[in-house]
Amino acid sequence: MENKVAVGVDIGGTNTVIGIVDQNGAVILKTNITTPAHGNFERYIADLSDTIKKLISDANKQVKNLKVMGIGVGAPIGNYHTGTIDFATNLSFKGRLPVVDSVRRHFSEMPVIVLTNDANAAAMGEMMYGGAKGMRDFVMFTLGTGVGSGIVANGDLVIGADGLAGEIGHSVLIPGGRLCSCGFSGHLEAYCSAPGMKNTAIELLKQDDNAESLLAKKSFADLDSKMIFEAAKQGDKIALEVFEKTGEWLGMGLANTVYHLSPAAIFLFGGPTAAGDLLFNPTKASMEKNLLSIYKNKIEILPSKLNPGDAAITGASAMVWKELGK
Amino acid sequence: MENKVAVGVDIGGTNTVIGIVDQNGAVILKTNITTPAHGNFERYIADLSDTIKKLISDANKQVKNLKVMGIGVGAPIGNYHTGTIDFATNLSFKGRLPVVDSVRRHFSEMPVIVLTNDANAAAMGEMMYGGAKGMRDFVMFTLGTGVGSGIVANGDLVIGADGLAGEIGHSVLIPGGRLCSCGFSGHLEAYCSAPGMKNTAIELLKQDDNAESLLAKKSFADLDSKMIFEAAKQGDKIALEVFEKTGEWLGMGLANTVYHLSPAAIFLFGGPTAAGDLLFNPTKASMEKNLLSIYKNKIEILPSKLNPGDAAITGASAMVWKELGK
Repeated sequence: MENKVAVGVDIGGTNTVIGIVDQNGAVILKTNITTPAHGNFERYIADLSDTIKKLISDANKQVKNLKVMGIGVGAPIGNYHTGTIDFATNLSFKGRLPVVDSVRRHFSEMPVIVLTNDANAAAMGEMMYGGAKGMRDFVMFTLGTGVGSGIVANGDLVIGADGLAGEIGHSVLIPGGRLCSCGFSGHLEAYCSAPGMKNTAIELLKQDDNAESLLAKKSFADLDSKMIFEAAKQGDKIALEVFEKTGEWLGMGLANTVYHLSPAAIFLFGGPTAAGDLLFNPTKASMEKNLLSIYKNKIEILPSKLNPGDAAITGASAMVWKELGK
Repeated sequence: MENKVAVGVDIGGTNTVIGIVDQNGAVILKTNITTPAHGNFERYIADLSDTIKKLISDANKQVKNLKVMGIGVGAPIGNYHTGTIDFATNLSFKGRLPVVDSVRRHFSEMPVIVLTNDANAAAMGEMMYGGAKGMRDFVMFTLGTGVGSGIVANGDLVIGADGLAGEIGHSVLIPGGRLCSCGFSGHLEAYCSAPGMKNTAIELLKQDDNAESLLAKKSFADLDSKMIFEAAKQGDKIALEVFEKTGEWLGMGLANTVYHLSPAAIFLFGGPTAAGDLLFNPTKASMEKNLLSIYKNKIEILPSKLNPGDAAITGASAMVWKELGK
């Protein structure tokens, strides 16, 4: 019997991670290469392709009758429709990068080569391998340096006319509010990303002039969302308030998404979700407070069941099964 | 050759309109009955069913080889999944109303009987008969007493896990802002519905104490969005400003929807859209202002191409073709 697998590739600004993933989302083998330092984009794709071929060859030694069904690539602003990464600010390569066409030149026989943005890939991973199995309508939010999102409706990934659906982090939460990384103000991301939590901590420290907080003893450069979590666990008042405020803002944002999509569940993924109830409880309370009664107590807010370390490559690999299921 | 048609039913608080609609969206025959004054819900459905049968019989006299493929019903809070209207505030019938099951008892042989909310029905009408033909990703907003919305993604109506997708009018535009008809504050609907426009006019009149405005001469009870349009056409400063502000708010809301769904177009339907450029220009400007550059100048804001008088029944009838296309 054939052992069908997919290759998942996660292109980040610093590293590109490549994994061979089975149909249950288990990573058989993985490796990585640096993303810059290949000279130019075509050279990078050539090196990436060699690495994929080597990894497939190694996997063939471990698993009998291995059959590679496709290569799924996740990247910031990865466009599903065009197969290109367009003007990514965090990559050293500039302009419009033809990822799918370039990889195709090295894998002419591969059944599927597909690209999408990382949050969409994460949502597909959740549906194929994680907590969203069998769900036809859900939304996934990835909390990290930014706030990404992936939407599934009617059992299919919502990609949008321009391939740019699921940038909910850039919807306006508070008009005229905090500056977002994108240069606009008041976006959900400015409040609920990891840097947003840091900003909240600093705002609270300034307001209270509370030198007793564990966070007051950290330098601006050192302070991060993990540290806020550690302080909150020790009962630090400011740190606890950061989670309360973050949850309040996130819940407002989730309610707006519910009014769009009426999902069965909303999954949260990323570093800040390690805080568990500290984040989920105020988020749930705020979302419910902002929902009309017809929606109340229906929508679950759940932690992602993807393995955090492998989510990017498993998510990218899930895109291959999506394509084959068409 | 068979002439396939669908019955479209629009249940409103006062009137129920019934039409026989062909596959091009043309209304062959229509009639209406009052919605209350039938004693109870089952009696109402019995009377509605008799009216439908009579209308089909009349249409048979006009059109050869007529074949009725289904009955599509649109109603506020009409739930596609359950076929029920749940606790509608604007109907005289209370509780959970089993529309599809009750109609089915009178039409045991009808291939399709389907219910959805009126804005979803309007979106399907736009896709089947109107300006969204061939579009796979678009959103429709209906501006009237409230702000309704219907979403199409991947070529299919987004209904949501609980059948309650597309209530974007109740997403928060301005936290802590204006009171919405639902009792919450700051919702898009509170700013961009017809009553919202009236409130904007009154706020502007209060601010400016501008007794020279044509609108200042109207009683509170008389003032409506149509009157504001008439005054704007005559160059009334306050009335023009109402459209500017309404467009600014609506454009902010549309941008948030774009960040969710990346639609090819957004259609606007309803009374206030009669104002044309007066409403569309500031809406477009505000939406573009609130979009990241990757989205700019890509998404059209278009007037609905549905006949306003028949949109509710043609939209409801479109649901029949959607079901048959499954």
